[in-house]
Amino acid sequence: MAELRLTELHGSLTDRALTSMNFLNEVSHHYPDAISLAAGRPTEEFFDLEEVHRYLDLFADHLRSRGYDEAAVRRTILQYGRTKGIVHDLVARNLAVDEDIHVDPEAIVVTVGCQEAMVLVLRALRSGPDDVLLAIAPTYVGITGAARVLDVPVRPVTEDDDLAAVVKAARADGLRPRACYLMPDFANPSGLSLDLESRRRLLEVAAAEDLLLLEDNPYGLFPAAGVDRVPTLKALDTERRVVYLGSFAKTGLPGARVGYVVADQTVEGPDGSTGLLAGELSKIKSMLTVNTSPVAQAVIGGKLLANDFSLVAANRRERAIYAANLRAITDGLAARFPGGEVTWTVPSGGFFVVVTVPFPVDDVLLEKSAQEYGVLWTPMSHFYDAGSPIHALRLSCSSVAPDQIDAALNRLAALITDQLP
Amino acid sequence: MAELRLTELHGSLTDRALTSMNFLNEVSHHYPDAISLAAGRPTEEFFDLEEVHRYLDLFADHLRSRGYDEAAVRRTILQYGRTKGIVHDLVARNLAVDEDIHVDPEAIVVTVGCQEAMVLVLRALRSGPDDVLLAIAPTYVGITGAARVLDVPVRPVTEDDDLAAVVKAARADGLRPRACYLMPDFANPSGLSLDLESRRRLLEVAAAEDLLLLEDNPYGLFPAAGVDRVPTLKALDTERRVVYLGSFAKTGLPGARVGYVVADQTVEGPDGSTGLLAGELSKIKSMLTVNTSPVAQAVIGGKLLANDFSLVAANRRERAIYAANLRAITDGLAARFPGGEVTWTVPSGGFFVVVTVPFPVDDVLLEKSAQEYGVLWTPMSHFYDAGSPIHALRLSCSSVAPDQIDAALNRLAALITDQLP
Repeated sequence: MAELRLTELHGSLTDRALTSMNFLNEVSHHYPDAISLAAGRPTEEFFDLEEVHRYLDLFADHLRSRGYDEAAVRRTILQYGRTKGIVHDLVARNLAVDEDIHVDPEAIVVTVGCQEAMVLVLRALRSGPDDVLLAIAPTYVGITGAARVLDVPVRPVTEDDDLAAVVKAARADGLRPRACYLMPDFANPSGLSLDLESRRRLLEVAAAEDLLLLEDNPYGLFPAAGVDRVPTLKALDTERRVVYLGSFAKTGLPGARVGYVVADQTVEGPDGSTGLLAGELSKIKSMLTVNTSPVAQAVIGGKLLANDFSLVAANRRERAIYAANLRAITDGLAARFPGGEVTWTVPSGGFFVVVTVPFPVDDVLLEKSAQEYGVLWTPMSHFYDAGSPIHALRLSCSSVAPDQIDAALNRLAALITDQLP
Repeated sequence: MAELRLTELHGSLTDRALTSMNFLNEVSHHYPDAISLAAGRPTEEFFDLEEVHRYLDLFADHLRSRGYDEAAVRRTILQYGRTKGIVHDLVARNLAVDEDIHVDPEAIVVTVGCQEAMVLVLRALRSGPDDVLLAIAPTYVGITGAARVLDVPVRPVTEDDDLAAVVKAARADGLRPRACYLMPDFANPSGLSLDLESRRRLLEVAAAEDLLLLEDNPYGLFPAAGVDRVPTLKALDTERRVVYLGSFAKTGLPGARVGYVVADQTVEGPDGSTGLLAGELSKIKSMLTVNTSPVAQAVIGGKLLANDFSLVAANRRERAIYAANLRAITDGLAARFPGGEVTWTVPSGGFFVVVTVPFPVDDVLLEKSAQEYGVLWTPMSHFYDAGSPIHALRLSCSSVAPDQIDAALNRLAALITDQLP
């Protein structure tokens, strides 16, 4: 009988970045009756199967309106497709309308969710063992995990670090920092955003240090009530320093698994020829997933067409739900912890609130919370590489029913109070 | 301005395995009027957008019949989903019905096409620089390319090689052969199949040498007219030596980009716990694509439901087309080359015929063929790793219109005749 040993499989499989995702999923499956403030999935309030049919039809009609005959319409949606995607032009229009980002559609690669976009970029940028990725800490587990799978070392950049100093320190260690990964808007997990001034400074540092910025923006369309959106790094990027990682999971439809990357950087070949980084990413994609399901792309394309390319417009109701939930959570925390021993962030938007407590928060406490208190959340330790104790946990406002927030916070408060000395 | 150099990106990007795919695509785009005997895509004869709608509805009804309420139906198809997939149980029934393969659905990971399945397996099996993949040569470029992207060396096993000897030679070189990749049925590109006796022997060698076999089976449902199917390696596998790579691109719908891997091997953790290889692949998948689009899976699930889980039944018309085209090509070659200077394979099924000619066949000749003779095919050199000249080309019967085969062969015959001394 074939018997494999885990220690003889790829090292990422025993790495915390991959096992923690599994652990968190398992906890939520084991305690289905616990109220979840853990899941970062979007609200299901407006899910509608009929819309999927409608979007498919709209995209087919769009192709017809562009002169495709019926055979070409069927071929575009049902056959193997262009590696870089079939809705790249619609995505470019969406970026222009919603983000004031103006790029050549040829610089866009449509991907199997934003996760594949990260994988493509990390793979392209690693030419040898000295190449490292910098990442703002605490860091989204998806980028850390992708880096592990691709053997790319990650150096964290903490809030107190100066990016330029981190780059110089890495170089002094003989390493080559290729890029810095961050979510400037309502980051996962911190919930924090960069102000306009910080964004401009970051672009200057990237230019001065010849570094790419990997801007991941899944939550940008969901500012809190009354908050104005800040331009993305890519919208401010006049030097093609920013590789923009896009997701439709929260703004389009998670079940389509469609994302994209804008990679308009120039790549010079050894023969002096030049092309776009998107072209190189496409070569890698052809060996990872061949192309993103055209059926799934057609669904997203149809949603873009149905909303005149504006996902801001398409997500008005969702934004209102998230904003109300976020407010309910921070107000609810304020009502329950007036003393100052427990603190929390009050994000200007997005899905996540970080609660800091006067004791370490680990997986054992999460299991206890699930089992004895009936509430799920995420230990912030999962977003730090080092194994040192972290005194914080992440709450998500995106998929909890509004009428359960009070109960969830009561349970969380009971748990926290019971841990206090 | 950010300027990247190709030589400072991942090495796979300048590797022939990745650039050749690009080259072949470009040639076919440059000469859209040439008749293509190059493309291995399935026939579009029966593509039907209405079927996609019907399959989606069938899958939703299936969930309802299993007791899902409407919210659960919507969540299953539209939300983020289970990493290992939502149609794994339907795939298991399809394998039982069509292949007499009986596996626990938990041993199946539904993937973004078969390509992602290959990537998952190759990534899991590479724990260090000594791990190598063996692959029957000539070799499908998809596995070679995936191996390049993942820094996994590939050792070819030629027709004349004895697999056990190749394994021993690799070990003598300090390498660890982890698996041998092959398509036992109507292989791409050779068109050849293994007989039952060879399959049994291969399984014995794999057991004796403690090697996994990676069985890729995209064409197995398409035997030539009058030819009986031979059991897959996985159907003969009593020792869990075979990792089975499945595709729905040719038998389901290419535009869904759904494939799967059966990985029922046991993996033992350092603490003595055991799980399935599928579970480890799922951990990697969570960092590559998170999950396969549930919308796309629902389309494939619906097609399986619509055909009582038999893709043999669903593909009767397609099989007839491929068989007739294959026959037309080999008969047409016989009529045009009676002399014996040019020879070709007469495959017992599948999409591909290999034509051997008395001169080297390279990319320059392909361009000449496209431009001056108006016919496209694939140089067999793309399927060999070494740069040595190969005197053969691959013809595909799957996507050429039947009434164009004669014209295509006339053009090919003119090209070949003009090259003869």
